[in-house]
Amino acid sequence: MLVVKKFGGSSVANKERIFNVARRCIDDYKKGNKVVVVLSAMGDTTDDLIALANDINPDAPKREMDMLLSIGEQQSVALMAMAMAKLGVPAISLNAFQVAMHTTSQYSNARFKRVDKDRILHELDAGKIVIVTGFQGVNKYDDITTLGRGGSDTTAVAIAATLNADRCEIFTDVDGVYTADPRIVKNARKLPEISYDEMLELASLGAQVLHNRSVEMAKKYGVTLVVRSSLNESEGTLVREVNTVEKMLVSGVACDKHAARIALIGVKNEPGVAFKVFDLLAKAGINVDMILQSVGRDDKKDISFTVDETEAKDAMKVLKENKDRLTITDFQDEENVAKLSIVGAGMQTNPGVAARMFGALYDAGVNIRMISTSEIRITVLIDLADVDRAMNAVHAEFMEEIEN
Amino acid sequence: MLVVKKFGGSSVANKERIFNVARRCIDDYKKGNKVVVVLSAMGDTTDDLIALANDINPDAPKREMDMLLSIGEQQSVALMAMAMAKLGVPAISLNAFQVAMHTTSQYSNARFKRVDKDRILHELDAGKIVIVTGFQGVNKYDDITTLGRGGSDTTAVAIAATLNADRCEIFTDVDGVYTADPRIVKNARKLPEISYDEMLELASLGAQVLHNRSVEMAKKYGVTLVVRSSLNESEGTLVREVNTVEKMLVSGVACDKHAARIALIGVKNEPGVAFKVFDLLAKAGINVDMILQSVGRDDKKDISFTVDETEAKDAMKVLKENKDRLTITDFQDEENVAKLSIVGAGMQTNPGVAARMFGALYDAGVNIRMISTSEIRITVLIDLADVDRAMNAVHAEFMEEIEN
Repeated sequence: MLVVKKFGGSSVANKERIFNVARRCIDDYKKGNKVVVVLSAMGDTTDDLIALANDINPDAPKREMDMLLSIGEQQSVALMAMAMAKLGVPAISLNAFQVAMHTTSQYSNARFKRVDKDRILHELDAGKIVIVTGFQGVNKYDDITTLGRGGSDTTAVAIAATLNADRCEIFTDVDGVYTADPRIVKNARKLPEISYDEMLELASLGAQVLHNRSVEMAKKYGVTLVVRSSLNESEGTLVREVNTVEKMLVSGVACDKHAARIALIGVKNEPGVAFKVFDLLAKAGINVDMILQSVGRDDKKDISFTVDETEAKDAMKVLKENKDRLTITDFQDEENVAKLSIVGAGMQTNPGVAARMFGALYDAGVNIRMISTSEIRITVLIDLADVDRAMNAVHAEFMEEIEN
Repeated sequence: MLVVKKFGGSSVANKERIFNVARRCIDDYKKGNKVVVVLSAMGDTTDDLIALANDINPDAPKREMDMLLSIGEQQSVALMAMAMAKLGVPAISLNAFQVAMHTTSQYSNARFKRVDKDRILHELDAGKIVIVTGFQGVNKYDDITTLGRGGSDTTAVAIAATLNADRCEIFTDVDGVYTADPRIVKNARKLPEISYDEMLELASLGAQVLHNRSVEMAKKYGVTLVVRSSLNESEGTLVREVNTVEKMLVSGVACDKHAARIALIGVKNEPGVAFKVFDLLAKAGINVDMILQSVGRDDKKDISFTVDETEAKDAMKVLKENKDRLTITDFQDEENVAKLSIVGAGMQTNPGVAARMFGALYDAGVNIRMISTSEIRITVLIDLADVDRAMNAVHAEFMEEIEN
């Protein structure tokens, strides 16, 4: 069996944890499996590097940020190879150049285009455990790119897809996918399995178990994912095409506290303005999430949208530079908001789910600022201060009744 | 003019120093020069990484050590590019892969085979300052190699040679090449210029101003070197083909405190034994320096030699594993020794220099353990405890008389 195992930064934060990961991988290897390990940077390394860069140039070129940040994973993989050697098992570390993890050109937010399999297969065939740097790639200029936060999951899935691996295990500090964040909702339960689509909605909505692109890619290439704990041996949650006859109405409640809301006030009420706004943002590489446009009154309308809070500054900059062309009178930039979502494949065939969710929030005294839906998801934007109360109310409404 | 400027780890140890280096490079750039900067890892980064590795595996595979250590320079160059961007000058950092700095395969002690110039020239032509990682290369397996301590000098010279640069400036914490280490010999003087051969002897003998391979390469390709201070604007010392009519008898006194002496006792007195010993060491990649073989008595002889203290452990290991085959009765491994050398192109045509040196040491009560000479150098192995006294005595004998 060929297994790809991905461990996050906290799993390799110090010597003891590095050896712990090494032993887990070696256990698999000694069962006769071929093992590829994908690692993130140790502990706070990435944050420390960002702080170092910000101290020198808060507006550092993104190309150079990626050049800098990529060293974190290279450190992890080299140390892991040393730990495995110490334990008597042949291992080799490879960075993005050495594997040849080809990505798009966009620094700090690149996407995989193609992963070469020759070098990894060559090393696996030589009987080695192969340890690959997560989070990074190389673009057509031979420059180092990074995939953005959580990108190591995507690296693991991209490698699993390329090698046609039997499974791709994502180790985290939780032991699987829960119906809600157990730190916020005490009745949250672990799911034995979940479909790609549900996981995708949960991931893209802030359930920080898996990076959303990794789930997209797993779905596209049919990679079986396993989310499990790096701290214990429990089975975790399988993410794959689920074919249970009766799908759960709601499989999870997620929140994303890192949303920012930007409101454009007094935009001229004429065709094409919204296009211009979002085209500009897209060209600047900013992902817009929820969008709300007021019904135009007189010749003016308001447009609100959410972005990840890390992109809010860039978005505001782009918009302000084009204020006149976009006919914007005023801006509002608000970061004390959060997205709350429910996700469930059964939602498609069960009307009234949205109404029940809004009712639960109303009963809990939570004000809804924006609403967005997909076939298997309903998301509301609420005040950051209301998150815990809202999560528990919604979880109680959908998840706790199902259990009985 | 095309200038390559190399700055060591202490010159980029913190934010202030990074900006200091950035400004110096920008001064050159603004005069219309094309500037390539080669950097070492910041401050103690390399030592910290070695400590991290040793904690995990004191016998770490050298390939993985190089993978680990190379991140130090990548950090420096990325931060330097950010600093230059902050100062409004376009700059780009490049690592060994990106430049394509091809080396031999030997990890931790690789040598350059070929440096590609396309990427660097492309970026220079685009009006950028190009910042390259020192100390590292890539071998034919696409693995990262390092050149050993001080290798960043060699990187700078290799790039200067490849680009046919007008000069290659090596910035250090001293402001030039001195007749002796001023910390040990208070009468030491700065030399305005010195020949490649003299510098080479000084460099390979522990005058830590320049890495010996860098001088070899500079000589081979006729690269004009300038050794100067990163802390002030003083002129420094030119290293080039010197054609002064009367060459100095002795241009410098150097000491190397990092020597180790290994003695092989009771080796069988038959042909081929010495060959076997040094062939084995060569195959293990260990550089042997001074060699002394006793005149054989009966059927036994002793062989002593010196190696860098960092290679003493490896050398002893190789020899012990082959003890029987090499017919060695016993070993001695001694690290409290130092090499003291005098270097001067004028020595070739002036007999009696060695006798004067030995006389000065005798007068100072310094015991000579081994002797080795070249056309322009005389080296003696002495006890580590005698170094300062010996340096001053020899410097007084040769250098202080010349001045008057």
